[in-house]
Amino acid sequence: MELDQVITSRRSIRKFKDRDVPQEVIEELLDLARYAPSSMNGQPWFFIVIKDPETKKELVFLKNKYCPIEKQDYQADFLLHAPVVILVCVDKERSFDREVENAVLATAHLLLAAHSRGLGAVYMSAYRAGDPRLTEDVRKLLGIPPEVEPITLIPLGYPDENPAAKMVRPLAEMVLHETFDK
Amino acid sequence: MELDQVITSRRSIRKFKDRDVPQEVIEELLDLARYAPSSMNGQPWFFIVIKDPETKKELVFLKNKYCPIEKQDYQADFLLHAPVVILVCVDKERSFDREVENAVLATAHLLLAAHSRGLGAVYMSAYRAGDPRLTEDVRKLLGIPPEVEPITLIPLGYPDENPAAKMVRPLAEMVLHETFDK
Repeated sequence: MELDQVITSRRSIRKFKDRDVPQEVIEELLDLARYAPSSMNGQPWFFIVIKDPETKKELVFLKNKYCPIEKQDYQADFLLHAPVVILVCVDKERSFDREVENAVLATAHLLLAAHSRGLGAVYMSAYRAGDPRLTEDVRKLLGIPPEVEPITLIPLGYPDENPAAKMVRPLAEMVLHETFDK
Repeated sequence: MELDQVITSRRSIRKFKDRDVPQEVIEELLDLARYAPSSMNGQPWFFIVIKDPETKKELVFLKNKYCPIEKQDYQADFLLHAPVVILVCVDKERSFDREVENAVLATAHLLLAAHSRGLGAVYMSAYRAGDPRLTEDVRKLLGIPPEVEPITLIPLGYPDENPAAKMVRPLAEMVLHETFDK
């Protein structure tokens, strides 16, 4: 699928068909994710592929428990019905102080790769700056050692919703020249 | 250009031809960048398009000044020869505590879009967690108000180098199933 079309037609998907995602398709997505740029080309990623319903249940519980008040409209319960959840983690030693950036870059590739194969996904965080509780609980749940940071959490599956094209803010409001002077 | 090919053939480019990038191509890239996902769909981006050689010189000075010891191999001088530099910023109020993530997601799109048009680019940071000095100096240089955070800095131009395909770490070292247990 052509890049521009992948980018402009991708939407966040939170409803999934009851249909498994073949292992080889999951591997295609992770293969493309690891081509993301990374600080000092450290390629620090670990991708934990989660299908166990009990683990998903715990992840929903933790995401809802630590959901900030202003984001309560985005409850995590739908994650239970995602056939696959990918937890994107980074090895701190390979991250060169850029844990979040490195994980998010691979996640961006993963989201585009998923959409290009007809899969739906949505960006979720496994981490919050200044509040380690969610990260620590996810770490405990999945046996993640202290030198590895879980950063994003991506539910994946075949979409059971078909959202309209994304409304984007006018580019003219976002583009500035030479300085911030509007 | 097809997504998988864009992803797997993209490299970081730090040598640019002395050839301007047409304004309409820059706008195509920014158009695609703004389709990135963002927290609460806040679409918080500002893109400052910088061509002024004096500003580039100041950016080089600041990047080198705050470059950590372990990254001294990556001096920023090459940025002087990039015909365009895009500073990706986010409006804090629209970012919902996800400033870095929102900026990095748009930057990932920007890097892929650039490569798909035959442009070279490289990911650079305008920010460092826990050390506001670079951000503050960039803010002063470009008149960026306190409610807007500069996050990434992307030099762009037609490549004057042709690096070999990226060596990626084996996927088997990165993929885990259900838990972190290797």
